[in-house]
Amino acid sequence: MDERMAPCERIGNTGAASTKYDIVIIGAGPVGLLLSTCLARWGYKIKHIDNRPEPTKTGRADGIQPRSLDLLRNMGLKPAIMEHGPAKVYEVAFWDPSPTAEGIHRTGTWASCPSFIDARYPFTTLLHQGLIERVFIADLEKNGVEIQRPWTIKGFRTDEATDAEFPVEVNLEHVEGKGKETVRAKYLFSGEGARSFVREQLNIGIKHKDPIAHVWGVMDGVVETDFPDIKMKCTIHSEHGSIMVIPRENNMVRLYIQIASSTDKDWNPRKTATEEEVQNSAKKILQPYNIKWERVEWYSVYPIGQGIADKYTLDHRVFMGGDACHTHSPKAGQGMNTAFLDALNLAWKIHHVEAGFADRSLLHSYESERKLIAENLLNFDAKYAALFSQRPPAAKDVAAATEQCSNKDDEGDENQFIKTFKESCEFTSGYGVAYDPNSLNWSPSHPAQSEVINPKGNRLRTGRILINSDVTRVVDANVVHLEQEVPVNGSFRIYVFAGNPTLTNQAIDDFAQNMSKKSTFFTAYLRRDIETVSHHERHNPHSHFLTFCVVFATKRSSIEISRDVPKLLARYRDNIYADDIWDQRVPDAKAAAHAKMGLNQEKGGIVVVRPDGYVGIVTSLVEGSGTVDALNEYFSAFCSKKLGEARAQL
Amino acid sequence: MDERMAPCERIGNTGAASTKYDIVIIGAGPVGLLLSTCLARWGYKIKHIDNRPEPTKTGRADGIQPRSLDLLRNMGLKPAIMEHGPAKVYEVAFWDPSPTAEGIHRTGTWASCPSFIDARYPFTTLLHQGLIERVFIADLEKNGVEIQRPWTIKGFRTDEATDAEFPVEVNLEHVEGKGKETVRAKYLFSGEGARSFVREQLNIGIKHKDPIAHVWGVMDGVVETDFPDIKMKCTIHSEHGSIMVIPRENNMVRLYIQIASSTDKDWNPRKTATEEEVQNSAKKILQPYNIKWERVEWYSVYPIGQGIADKYTLDHRVFMGGDACHTHSPKAGQGMNTAFLDALNLAWKIHHVEAGFADRSLLHSYESERKLIAENLLNFDAKYAALFSQRPPAAKDVAAATEQCSNKDDEGDENQFIKTFKESCEFTSGYGVAYDPNSLNWSPSHPAQSEVINPKGNRLRTGRILINSDVTRVVDANVVHLEQEVPVNGSFRIYVFAGNPTLTNQAIDDFAQNMSKKSTFFTAYLRRDIETVSHHERHNPHSHFLTFCVVFATKRSSIEISRDVPKLLARYRDNIYADDIWDQRVPDAKAAAHAKMGLNQEKGGIVVVRPDGYVGIVTSLVEGSGTVDALNEYFSAFCSKKLGEARAQL
Repeated sequence: MDERMAPCERIGNTGAASTKYDIVIIGAGPVGLLLSTCLARWGYKIKHIDNRPEPTKTGRADGIQPRSLDLLRNMGLKPAIMEHGPAKVYEVAFWDPSPTAEGIHRTGTWASCPSFIDARYPFTTLLHQGLIERVFIADLEKNGVEIQRPWTIKGFRTDEATDAEFPVEVNLEHVEGKGKETVRAKYLFSGEGARSFVREQLNIGIKHKDPIAHVWGVMDGVVETDFPDIKMKCTIHSEHGSIMVIPRENNMVRLYIQIASSTDKDWNPRKTATEEEVQNSAKKILQPYNIKWERVEWYSVYPIGQGIADKYTLDHRVFMGGDACHTHSPKAGQGMNTAFLDALNLAWKIHHVEAGFADRSLLHSYESERKLIAENLLNFDAKYAALFSQRPPAAKDVAAATEQCSNKDDEGDENQFIKTFKESCEFTSGYGVAYDPNSLNWSPSHPAQSEVINPKGNRLRTGRILINSDVTRVVDANVVHLEQEVPVNGSFRIYVFAGNPTLTNQAIDDFAQNMSKKSTFFTAYLRRDIETVSHHERHNPHSHFLTFCVVFATKRSSIEISRDVPKLLARYRDNIYADDIWDQRVPDAKAAAHAKMGLNQEKGGIVVVRPDGYVGIVTSLVEGSGTVDALNEYFSAFCSKKLGEARAQL
Repeated sequence: MDERMAPCERIGNTGAASTKYDIVIIGAGPVGLLLSTCLARWGYKIKHIDNRPEPTKTGRADGIQPRSLDLLRNMGLKPAIMEHGPAKVYEVAFWDPSPTAEGIHRTGTWASCPSFIDARYPFTTLLHQGLIERVFIADLEKNGVEIQRPWTIKGFRTDEATDAEFPVEVNLEHVEGKGKETVRAKYLFSGEGARSFVREQLNIGIKHKDPIAHVWGVMDGVVETDFPDIKMKCTIHSEHGSIMVIPRENNMVRLYIQIASSTDKDWNPRKTATEEEVQNSAKKILQPYNIKWERVEWYSVYPIGQGIADKYTLDHRVFMGGDACHTHSPKAGQGMNTAFLDALNLAWKIHHVEAGFADRSLLHSYESERKLIAENLLNFDAKYAALFSQRPPAAKDVAAATEQCSNKDDEGDENQFIKTFKESCEFTSGYGVAYDPNSLNWSPSHPAQSEVINPKGNRLRTGRILINSDVTRVVDANVVHLEQEVPVNGSFRIYVFAGNPTLTNQAIDDFAQNMSKKSTFFTAYLRRDIETVSHHERHNPHSHFLTFCVVFATKRSSIEISRDVPKLLARYRDNIYADDIWDQRVPDAKAAAHAKMGLNQEKGGIVVVRPDGYVGIVTSLVEGSGTVDALNEYFSAFCSKKLGEARAQL
């Protein structure tokens, strides 16, 4: 397929009669929906089925982490989420048996996302999964994708010999047998949840990291209570048992009660409890406070173990993600968030392979990146549980740890508690995701070797998200969140931190000049329709795979785009910024965004951010061809063509 | 009517056949819609007609000031406005004939809402009036109000003798004569715009402050241009004429061109120009830059003078607001914003009179308050025009003025330019509205006389809006905007700034205790259904006219509501806050909200804010009955009953 063919140009091959799809997606939970939403926006043809007759009505996952809210905003879906008036959890409260009186007392509170994490939204957003699903479904409908319900998958096989372009055959069936379809696709994705037919068929095992399994009771309802923390997330230990409280939208509250544990003497994974039994347990646990239920919206009992699939794919045509790959306790509220990031990670890689930008081997990084995160999550889950299993830390320890985390970069003399505290905050906020070095995430062992890479002072870490910063857009003087300025459009984001324009003028010109040469990462993948692109196109006037931003370390009013920005970059006129907004985290910096990233405020630097928001590589901005040469080498590591010097010499 | 009858209890008397309404509203532009929306939410029965077959399709007013955006957020309508992706104007650019070359050059820019104004949204929001109207219409529909279109008013008369409760008779007619109705109402409101039938019938004159009238051409369209400030608000003077540029949603831009002025030798108020002529003028004016139109969405030519109605009402039954009362040039973008505030001012006063809280004379303050604002606006408009008529101020003058406004409270040695600059920023942002002293806005001549009133250090000004501040809500640790926490619910907002609880404990108890006595502003107007109010009711558990907030000058985690807050105030558990968020404007304050208001951080104080957000009175928080006594006197000045001591001694 022509690498310059725009996804939006490819949409022509629709038609209800066709049985060929770019992808078949099984399951319309968070992972399937986010994948579908991205690929639909980028012009792919999707068959998306779900075995339920309608979206989730009640209950299920409901926690959106700070980092996931960033992502939803970046996809333009945050307003629709917030419209439902979700609960926001800023702090977790810990309650223990009172040493001096009957019943429980509060031992302290812990910020969900303490100030040492530079988050835009330092809270967890709680909203019933069905409302979140509907936000995606509404977006999919705008792009012509309808979930086919209630349909299920009955079989599939990959067979490149029969059809190399659409190698996967999938058999689908109405759950009541009212219809059957056999379709062909380039990819099949299972977002089926813990009981994945696809995973079973592939004979992929689940490894249980933690041998301890639990039975949980979970109840959503509206209560009347004098328990003072009913609108906070609470972990409550009492002599009558333990409970977790999570506030919800519409005055609701969710209670998790552990009904059985495989450490119990009479362990029975089928042990259950009635709604009334759970309410009576809760009443005892919450003494001396009172609680009564006005109504129960949802109640469920389910056994859960910590498990992780051995593989996420066998052939890089049939993939899995979300709960099909990893299950864990609901305590840390990670399920939906991990699912979102699985989907985002896969979405852009499929896009870059199918649109011809990346080599097919890029797809291998889906499993290696995402399985590591699931493993870290499971390890963390165990550590987090241990940290609180007996006695929660005293409020003063938490305060001291928060203080210490805020004040130092140096991690040398942290004690174990502070380390675990920091890790757990990063984990529960979603800011802890860190991908290992590979072709996308530069490290000293990456094929790209140049002294311009990873300049001195750089505080960005490859494989982690871009640090947040506020800047002023030049054309309209709007103060904006730089990390949000490029939407989830499937493009790499090339941030030219341009320092002081009087000093970097030549380097910026050289950057644009060298990028324009033959066979660079820029020119090798130009849009086929480049001559007819509308002047209103903001992010992708030249390429579907790259969006440029330029950030000057100077006052907005002193920037004249026609004078200071070479023509190629000036085409991204709406993505040109002044780094002139004061930031409390770097109060003395002249250019706060430069300073936060650790880039020289005079000389600037280049930051390449992957389409999913993770930093790929950071270079200095030098006169001559050095910067572009380094980026050509970086992109050559996973692109479908050899770029730059390597290519030019062929 | 029983003063304790809740508006929501009154809604019973609907029924299509009924011809009696609380209010008949003529015109569904901004002023009519905001009035209708408030009264519908508060349970009033409304007949709302408009003579257009559908809402505004294109063009018309489109500027929402910072302060108006606060109001829309407070009404819960901001997300629906922002969903349309409006343009945001942060700066105004000034262009003049270039002294050195052909064509125009930029002489400087000016922040729409400079940092010395403590605004949440320091920008003007630009969105086509029809989209704004639809947001209100959707809200009205939720409350069962539908605009009757296309209908018009044919006559009306006020006649208390025939029906004292519904004294206004109104004759309505379909614009094509397809139907007639005669209805009776308590009130009639004209939001008809500049050509008001009601105003003409009442024989109310228009005074023209400024004898100069203008003919304006206004064009909304999508353009292609290399003019660098096309996404900013611009005032452009050239030797070929003058133009104003205003960015819009969906890549549109609005141009205002002055076609004729009554100062012209050949002045003709009917002078016009074709679309092409205006475009050709714009092309000449913008040289050396190029501009061409891809499409024109709306084009109109209209004469406009600066005018103000002599009266806003004759009998306090038939009222007018918006353009029916005041017309001015579109340059400062004030029309819709002034209309909103007219409507809000009238809405709660009608509510308080009809629901029995306030004496009918409260309605007199509508005209006195709003006419003053319109007069100030017209005066400002003239000054603003003069300030820029010849040569705009140099960029360095503006920078110096901004600096000076930020740095000083003392207004003693300001020069005229700085004073006008400050005033104009306050005006264009909407933060400049200041109502004169009257029974609502305390001053030394108010009947309430007590040494607890207007405590030393107080920085709040009666008749001006509450200063913005961030606080932490105690029950859920959410960081919130204090001034937004009580919605536009028709209630006075009583903020108990509670200082240091260990010092104010007795004073707070005394406050609650004394309020609970017979015939106070609190007990005299309790809800009739107080025994059956849901425990979920957040803002109005006791009264429809009062909502309480308590703000402690201490850390959230140290506040225990059951211990620190008397039962009466603890009922407002969701409105109890910790003043523990750092604020850049008072960097050294321990309790930033207290400090910004100028209230003692140890001893606190009470701030009474009117239902429309303007400060009514500020008192200290003292032990004993002093604070409640002062508030009883304050409310006695406009309430329907004598309160407190005065009453108790009867």
